[in-house]
Amino acid sequence: MRSIKYILVVYDVNEKRINKVHKVLKKYIIWQQNSTFEGNVTQANIKRMIYELNKKINSKEDSILIYFFNSKTVIRKEVDGIEKWNVSSNFI
Amino acid sequence: MRSIKYILVVYDVNEKRINKVHKVLKKYIIWQQNSTFEGNVTQANIKRMIYELNKKINSKEDSILIYFFNSKTVIRKEVDGIEKWNVSSNFI
Repeated sequence: MRSIKYILVVYDVNEKRINKVHKVLKKYIIWQQNSTFEGNVTQANIKRMIYELNKKINSKEDSILIYFFNSKTVIRKEVDGIEKWNVSSNFI
Repeated sequence: MRSIKYILVVYDVNEKRINKVHKVLKKYIIWQQNSTFEGNVTQANIKRMIYELNKKINSKEDSILIYFFNSKTVIRKEVDGIEKWNVSSNFI
């Protein structure tokens, strides 16, 4: 059985690399707001995503935090302000 | 018994308001990297924090995502790149 995780990814990377990181993440999970993605991903795709991300960043300068959850049910999320993912033109 | 939640806060706010949001969050939880804070907080302090945040942001333009967890144990976290919270001078 394919094991699926729910993941949340937030990144703090040099401006020169933001687009590259954004493009990798967009292939696997869903944009929420600048520097923040979420979604269900298979273990295999998590490996691919991390491999690709590590090729794009400068590991001495950039930081990507990946939070893993067994399912979305353990997460309660509140939004203060606007839901940027619903206002797609705002993505960067 | 004081109920404690583990929370993760990520924000995408106008540059003019970043410092204000940062200063509120720093009172309650721990800076991880730009736009990202985490920590254990009482329910009462969560209310205070959200009240203060909403006074600082422009709710038509800014976005703050707050993720609530019953405990830190449901979270597995991986860092790719550097741990910015360990390199404190990098905080903005």
